[in-house]
Amino acid sequence: MTEKEDYGMRRKIVIVGGVAGGAATAARLRRMDEDAEILLIERGEHVSFANCGLPYHIGGEIEDREKLLVMTPAKLRSWFNLDVRVRTEVVAVDREKKEVELRHNASGEVIRETYDNLVLSPGAKPVVPDLPGVDSEKIRTLRNLLDMDSIKALVDGGITSAVVVGGGFIGLEVAEQLRRRDVAVTLVELLDQVMPSVDPEMASPLHATLRDHGVDLRLGTRVEGFKENGAGIGVNLSDGTTLDTDMVLLAVGVKPESDLAQAAGLEVTDRGTIVVDEHMRTSDPDIYAVGDVVTVRQKQLGTPVWLPLAGPASRQGRVAANHIAGKTPDRFPGVVGTSVCRVFELAVGSTGLGEKALKEAGVAYHRQYVGPFFHADYYPGAVRITVKVLFSPTDGKLFGAQVVGAGGIDKRVDVLSTAIHAGMTVFDLEDLELGYAPPYGTARDPVNFAGFAAANRLRGDVEVAEWQDLVDEEDSMLIDVRQPEEVEEGGVPGAVNIPLGVLRNRMKELPRHKEILVFCGVGQRGYYAYRVLKHHGFKVRNMDGGIMLHRMVQPPA
Amino acid sequence: MTEKEDYGMRRKIVIVGGVAGGAATAARLRRMDEDAEILLIERGEHVSFANCGLPYHIGGEIEDREKLLVMTPAKLRSWFNLDVRVRTEVVAVDREKKEVELRHNASGEVIRETYDNLVLSPGAKPVVPDLPGVDSEKIRTLRNLLDMDSIKALVDGGITSAVVVGGGFIGLEVAEQLRRRDVAVTLVELLDQVMPSVDPEMASPLHATLRDHGVDLRLGTRVEGFKENGAGIGVNLSDGTTLDTDMVLLAVGVKPESDLAQAAGLEVTDRGTIVVDEHMRTSDPDIYAVGDVVTVRQKQLGTPVWLPLAGPASRQGRVAANHIAGKTPDRFPGVVGTSVCRVFELAVGSTGLGEKALKEAGVAYHRQYVGPFFHADYYPGAVRITVKVLFSPTDGKLFGAQVVGAGGIDKRVDVLSTAIHAGMTVFDLEDLELGYAPPYGTARDPVNFAGFAAANRLRGDVEVAEWQDLVDEEDSMLIDVRQPEEVEEGGVPGAVNIPLGVLRNRMKELPRHKEILVFCGVGQRGYYAYRVLKHHGFKVRNMDGGIMLHRMVQPPA
Repeated sequence: MTEKEDYGMRRKIVIVGGVAGGAATAARLRRMDEDAEILLIERGEHVSFANCGLPYHIGGEIEDREKLLVMTPAKLRSWFNLDVRVRTEVVAVDREKKEVELRHNASGEVIRETYDNLVLSPGAKPVVPDLPGVDSEKIRTLRNLLDMDSIKALVDGGITSAVVVGGGFIGLEVAEQLRRRDVAVTLVELLDQVMPSVDPEMASPLHATLRDHGVDLRLGTRVEGFKENGAGIGVNLSDGTTLDTDMVLLAVGVKPESDLAQAAGLEVTDRGTIVVDEHMRTSDPDIYAVGDVVTVRQKQLGTPVWLPLAGPASRQGRVAANHIAGKTPDRFPGVVGTSVCRVFELAVGSTGLGEKALKEAGVAYHRQYVGPFFHADYYPGAVRITVKVLFSPTDGKLFGAQVVGAGGIDKRVDVLSTAIHAGMTVFDLEDLELGYAPPYGTARDPVNFAGFAAANRLRGDVEVAEWQDLVDEEDSMLIDVRQPEEVEEGGVPGAVNIPLGVLRNRMKELPRHKEILVFCGVGQRGYYAYRVLKHHGFKVRNMDGGIMLHRMVQPPA
Repeated sequence: MTEKEDYGMRRKIVIVGGVAGGAATAARLRRMDEDAEILLIERGEHVSFANCGLPYHIGGEIEDREKLLVMTPAKLRSWFNLDVRVRTEVVAVDREKKEVELRHNASGEVIRETYDNLVLSPGAKPVVPDLPGVDSEKIRTLRNLLDMDSIKALVDGGITSAVVVGGGFIGLEVAEQLRRRDVAVTLVELLDQVMPSVDPEMASPLHATLRDHGVDLRLGTRVEGFKENGAGIGVNLSDGTTLDTDMVLLAVGVKPESDLAQAAGLEVTDRGTIVVDEHMRTSDPDIYAVGDVVTVRQKQLGTPVWLPLAGPASRQGRVAANHIAGKTPDRFPGVVGTSVCRVFELAVGSTGLGEKALKEAGVAYHRQYVGPFFHADYYPGAVRITVKVLFSPTDGKLFGAQVVGAGGIDKRVDVLSTAIHAGMTVFDLEDLELGYAPPYGTARDPVNFAGFAAANRLRGDVEVAEWQDLVDEEDSMLIDVRQPEEVEEGGVPGAVNIPLGVLRNRMKELPRHKEILVFCGVGQRGYYAYRVLKHHGFKVRNMDGGIMLHRMVQPPA
């Protein structure tokens, strides 16, 4: 409790940054403390706008720009009695005097304000790599409404081509929206996959879909520089080619805007993110930080993680406000990390730890794939989706999950996220009761299926092999147990087709001295075949994920 | 282990009923025991058909009838080496000799088969109340493909009207599909609400939607009898009126088909369901029962419950098979009960315990409503949904949840079901990380919102009043804190409009001697107003669920 409170004076809180975390902090703080003086300082023109909606207005999917203004300064003032100051930058923090220096951007006027508590929510800004020609007017980034307006103006003005650099959320969403406007799009990505939040094979269906929609996808390709040429710009790639285009969007990631915090001497990580405790307090207990600028705890590993997403930012704002108000012992519990993204008719999502994080942490894991229909297969629109779960080989604890496909992806991601938050095992997934009606699901939901398959494995009811590991085909025989008409649509070179239905009658064709590797479309009939052959004494394993995974691991050129 | 096994002989299992639970048992059993002799006996013509899809073929939404045949006898034979016998009825069980008596329906031939284990999966059949004239050909029930075919033939033949008796899943789904075929539908329901799996106010939006789509809804109305009149049939109602119609569908519930079990002396409940242990064993340890015929354990209360749904039936079949095969100590953990149903553009779902069950069990609970957008409000198609959570007033443990609305209902039901399975509290719901992309969700998902609202209450940050309890308006003053333009679209009689934005300036208008009850659209601004007024010493409560809930509790006539 500060001295001011002891004397019944109004506490004064200055919040730096009026979007997402900052606005959430301010609104919650007012609810917890009607008396406090709350200043919300925003450098830009808009507070609390819908960052995640920006790409969709460029493409016209969100027609009305006004809809992106979640909260206006006027509303924040009248509802929450906040002192909102836009186009105003906090240029310095004097921790000793507990003062900030504010500069009004238009007038250049500088004033000082005291604070009892300071909350930093400056966010993260797009990375602009130091490349030749990167200063061109033709190169854009997308962070706020003004960026959006300028890109939309170019599209409205009739540009016919664009190069999107970076295949993360923003790059993919903008690429989709530009295609929607009939702009020719080349997507250049340094990695061999887009959407680095999922493991490589899970991104593979996105590559096919992007290409189907006319996106010229350049994976494993580095941008080396830019050069304006008349009305357009040339983008020089690591493969020696140059792309001539009307516009470039740089979407190669973001970096925390922690300059102010660093100048104030607050503790930051090597990456430049601000270090906070579970109450979102920085190394100065009077100063809090929330949102895309902070490092938090990865819940499962207990290690620091930087996860610049809107959901956690909002929750962190709430925690900081609660703690400042002294009302509750609220703690930010850390994150498991959950995200979802639409890419044309597909969606992709992930929750918890991926293979890279598990390997880095030295955690042993199994991976399991299933490919069930996302709702009743007899109901119109049924398609198969791919669910991947990562779990403990010993007790079955669920570490992570990734889902990709053309229906019901967000639902399965959220259910699996909830399961991870609860510390569930794959055995628990078997018993989840998930709503079944033909338009929404099946009697055995994809999440149950993932549980069954993983649990079968842990119980020793099946042994699996993985396409990823398949090297020596000399010692093994590949058996495709699908129907001949399915095999005609594409199979695996060297595999012998013995449909499940006749397997019991054709076992004499199978070798006893070789390992038999069975597979089907997604892994289910392969498992049935495994059970038959195993019983009859064959050395056998089921190829996990079947042809579905084969295509994801070794996509056709 | 039986003697047969000791001598290496094949074990023989007879399964009665080839749909859902029976087929699941047989398929799993084969995987666990390649040697066993497995007889799957089905009285009807079809095994393993899609019960839940039947209404949708009547309406033509599922065009291809073949799609409803999930598994054919031929496929079950070839994939799983099952001895499938359709059109065959098990007419008696001789537990002493461990034999069943089978009658082939067409030929009338009777034979006996021995068994080591018997699995009963006879399902449940539609209740046909003992009413005058109920034997008419114009009165139908819907259980299997033949029922479906005959109803579809009537519709194809050009009937123009139908009376659906019963507003549960099947009644609602058939009513919707008949409207799709332009058949005039009257839905007669004994209770004051349709969909008894949710609490009355949560069914209220369904009533409006049914009426919007031309369904003549007769709630609180009993059918007293039927009388054929020329080409049609008259349906006599308890209100003295008679409905003349072309066809009647009876969908007033199902009852367990336990005659065979009862004749065999197996233990059944008063309701006629078979009593089983956690391995799905009946009172005779050689006989198992699964699916719609058994009573299982309500997971949260530990009490017996009858929940005839496809998901649990399938899971029970798996448990029974595992236990028979002696492979794993698999247990059926009981059910919390999760269901979802589409009703025209709405969906409704529930999980866990409802108010009726909580009251019967004598469990103290709070209820909390929230009305957030199901995905980003700035993204096209955004509508508000209603989420109701029931939770412990002491520790916040989640008891049950119900969701209704026009988008993303199935997802929230499944997330909340997973939370209940995990034993989560409303505080845990605050911290769930649910995927946010504009087409799928919001930075604070509706499930998070439910957690925030419930947790605010338990932490004492808000006190709520409920429209359900509002009786004496003398002692209180109702304040509508919405904008005047919202109030014009409908408010609460007697309420005074003071928009949130001007509340701080108009507090002098408010009485100190009366309780002030604030409300808004869904409860959020009401909560903000509560915080302001409470701070200034007023006696105040927020009307939970706002106008949204007011309309659900007191729907306009």
